[in-house]
Amino acid sequence: MEGKLSVKHLLGIKDLQLSDIELIFKTAENFKAILQQPIKKVPSLRDKTIANLFFENSTRTKLSFELAERRLSADVVNFAASASSVSKGETLIDTVNNILSMKVDMVVMRHPNPGSAVFLAKRVNSVIINAGDGAHEHPTQALLDAYSIREKLGELKGLKIAIVGDILHSRVALSNILCLKKCGAEVMVCGPTTLIPKYISSLGVKVEYNLQKALEWCDVANMLRIQLERQDISYFPSLRDYTQQYGLTKTILDSLSKKIVIMHPGPINRGVEISSEVADGDQSIILQQVENGVAIRMAVLYLLSN
Amino acid sequence: MEGKLSVKHLLGIKDLQLSDIELIFKTAENFKAILQQPIKKVPSLRDKTIANLFFENSTRTKLSFELAERRLSADVVNFAASASSVSKGETLIDTVNNILSMKVDMVVMRHPNPGSAVFLAKRVNSVIINAGDGAHEHPTQALLDAYSIREKLGELKGLKIAIVGDILHSRVALSNILCLKKCGAEVMVCGPTTLIPKYISSLGVKVEYNLQKALEWCDVANMLRIQLERQDISYFPSLRDYTQQYGLTKTILDSLSKKIVIMHPGPINRGVEISSEVADGDQSIILQQVENGVAIRMAVLYLLSN
Amino acid sequence: MEGKLSVKHLLGIKDLQLSDIELIFKTAENFKAILQQPIKKVPSLRDKTIANLFFENSTRTKLSFELAERRLSADVVNFAASASSVSKGETLIDTVNNILSMKVDMVVMRHPNPGSAVFLAKRVNSVIINAGDGAHEHPTQALLDAYSIREKLGELKGLKIAIVGDILHSRVALSNILCLKKCGAEVMVCGPTTLIPKYISSLGVKVEYNLQKALEWCDVANMLRIQLERQDISYFPSLRDYTQQYGLTKTILDSLSKKIVIMHPGPINRGVEISSEVADGDQSIILQQVENGVAIRMAVLYLLSN
Repeated sequence: MEGKLSVKHLLGIKDLQLSDIELIFKTAENFKAILQQPIKKVPSLRDKTIANLFFENSTRTKLSFELAERRLSADVVNFAASASSVSKGETLIDTVNNILSMKVDMVVMRHPNPGSAVFLAKRVNSVIINAGDGAHEHPTQALLDAYSIREKLGELKGLKIAIVGDILHSRVALSNILCLKKCGAEVMVCGPTTLIPKYISSLGVKVEYNLQKALEWCDVANMLRIQLERQDISYFPSLRDYTQQYGLTKTILDSLSKKIVIMHPGPINRGVEISSEVADGDQSIILQQVENGVAIRMAVLYLLSN
Repeated sequence: MEGKLSVKHLLGIKDLQLSDIELIFKTAENFKAILQQPIKKVPSLRDKTIANLFFENSTRTKLSFELAERRLSADVVNFAASASSVSKGETLIDTVNNILSMKVDMVVMRHPNPGSAVFLAKRVNSVIINAGDGAHEHPTQALLDAYSIREKLGELKGLKIAIVGDILHSRVALSNILCLKKCGAEVMVCGPTTLIPKYISSLGVKVEYNLQKALEWCDVANMLRIQLERQDISYFPSLRDYTQQYGLTKTILDSLSKKIVIMHPGPINRGVEISSEVADGDQSIILQQVENGVAIRMAVLYLLSN
Repeated sequence: MEGKLSVKHLLGIKDLQLSDIELIFKTAENFKAILQQPIKKVPSLRDKTIANLFFENSTRTKLSFELAERRLSADVVNFAASASSVSKGETLIDTVNNILSMKVDMVVMRHPNPGSAVFLAKRVNSVIINAGDGAHEHPTQALLDAYSIREKLGELKGLKIAIVGDILHSRVALSNILCLKKCGAEVMVCGPTTLIPKYISSLGVKVEYNLQKALEWCDVANMLRIQLERQDISYFPSLRDYTQQYGLTKTILDSLSKKIVIMHPGPINRGVEISSEVADGDQSIILQQVENGVAIRMAVLYLLSN
């Protein structure tokens, strides 16, 4: 596998060029082929140590990165920081500098503060991979989403993708918009007015408040997770109300004039933003997204490791 | 090592045939010999990824499985789910499907709900090993217990084993009964009436409420742990009362007409169900049980890995 | 690398002879050279299993040990015990005996009780490495500190080292005093009277309550962390008061007649015991301490592994 990324870190989709995205996709394709084989391990990062720094809980993203790292034969150290030590502010650089002093080659970080990955990359001398920084970016998720659409439908160029749900708090939405636009797709966001930020149209996306209309328009619908834990502020009257207006059911899906592809970044609130029938149905590529996640992360780690 | 199990998963002792148990024992014997050597690692599962899914705390069972996996050269990913995400119900399949999409070959699961391992095995396309499902089964514990008795006393056939304590809530008790019966041993359960379920005699075991009598009868006494944390319901007047009636002391042991073998699945409440003198005494095989646990788990993982 | 330690365990600096310390330093030097190379891994402990038993939270010490173990190619199992299970008293031996029954070769343990490592080493048949036992000892920290001073300034013999802060509760202080004295350095402790125990002068160290005077005297100042979490007892009027009297700032540092070396065991409370300017300044060797920590731990593990 040849080629070189134009960036030293993966902080966000914002910094990537289309050629970077294409290189990542091509590399992921190769790794995906390897993952289909009985022996899924390659020695590429045998001499690298990777630290997973998760300042926020994230079972599946962490597991996906960890599997990607192990299948590249990297040495893996996990570092789960409690929320309490995060709140001490300035300790982030100290923490990372300490880890780097221990001769760690790459850092995969999830952090609740937007901009923390960029902040870090400016100050430490190591490869940083952003595994989600607050409501800012989640680049590997966007890459695996775009890759999964491309795998299912071919060219991204000209495709119509609707992102449905809580756009306001979602790093997945932002990274997806940036990635899909760079790949030439058209993007629409859909959700309650309270969950769609005003600035979003400046990113060149359409805005639609009616789910049925958004679904009629798109080739692919990416149903975002409603953060049930964010109950301190009310962005919609009730969960039942949200489900009635924005929950995707088989009835709605069957009422559309064409068969669209259904995605979800997980974990799913079954019966809230998406019904079980739809999530498990033949239009859903949810499990392919998960599978592709490992290949995409292997590709990113591999390409940034030199 | 040759032979093949009649099952695809290890969900419970219930599904095993005697020939399966014997094959596991024979395989464990080989692995145990390897564990005595300076180099304890074999390359058998070098290309397998195993996920340990523990939805319940379990330091020692998890450690035992992890060591077994590492010594078979498997790649190991640990997944400790919080109780909160467990309570969301339907997420179990989602969680496991996600993990399997990441191309994990085998899943070792502990879960608080009885039947969860069976439920899973029906719905996912992977090898499932039950590391304890609620009060239902804990098959590797029963296998290592039976193996340890056999190692100490030879043939299981015709031996008399008393299981003492909280039979009602114990997956260890149930799996032990099933396993020992299949191996031809006679089994008696002993404990307060409140902790011995009515249906138990239908499993072909004797019931005895008097500890002294049970001990006089048996060749081996397996002293179960009293779950001190289960304090919401009172199954006996007080802990002191339990200890007085069912706690095994050196005095009782020495009063018996023969030397019996003492077992405990751990962790021990010293001074409650068993005194320190007995736990650490020469009739106890408690540490051998722990040692055999790794060999038994290596055998199970190895035999199910094809 | 040749030579043999006079001890079977690393329980405390107290048990080490000067020749042991020198052997550890020499071995660490070799490992440090390896850590500078692209391939940082050596096969030395390929057939060893090491259990990290942390009964107390310790992100960085644990990470440092884990990296040391992985770079020696050992198999690593982590065991994070909750405080609750610690409080059950006698379970420590049970826990460790269980782990050892699983054929673990070495145990690295942090425990809140002073003397727990010694207690264990007397009762179990395995190599024990003390990673901090209450307010008693933290030998690898002292070794890496002494090693870092030696690396920076050459011979330890005759050097003057001031340890500043909470001497009373600090295992780092005690181990440092013992190690530096054995190496022939002069040691002074400095802090509020309430945080300097009476017995300390019996260890052959000077006592000084004035920071400026301590700094004027020394070649190296080791600024201990104030345990902000220890707020139940008041050892000084307020944190602000402590910082005013014992916080090291650039102004103080520049007022001294010579350039001294600044150390800190981490994690730093920036702006409390040390200002950011000093911590990140060119007199600070804080990150070198962290880097040397991995090499020192590799040396200790390697030397104790036979």
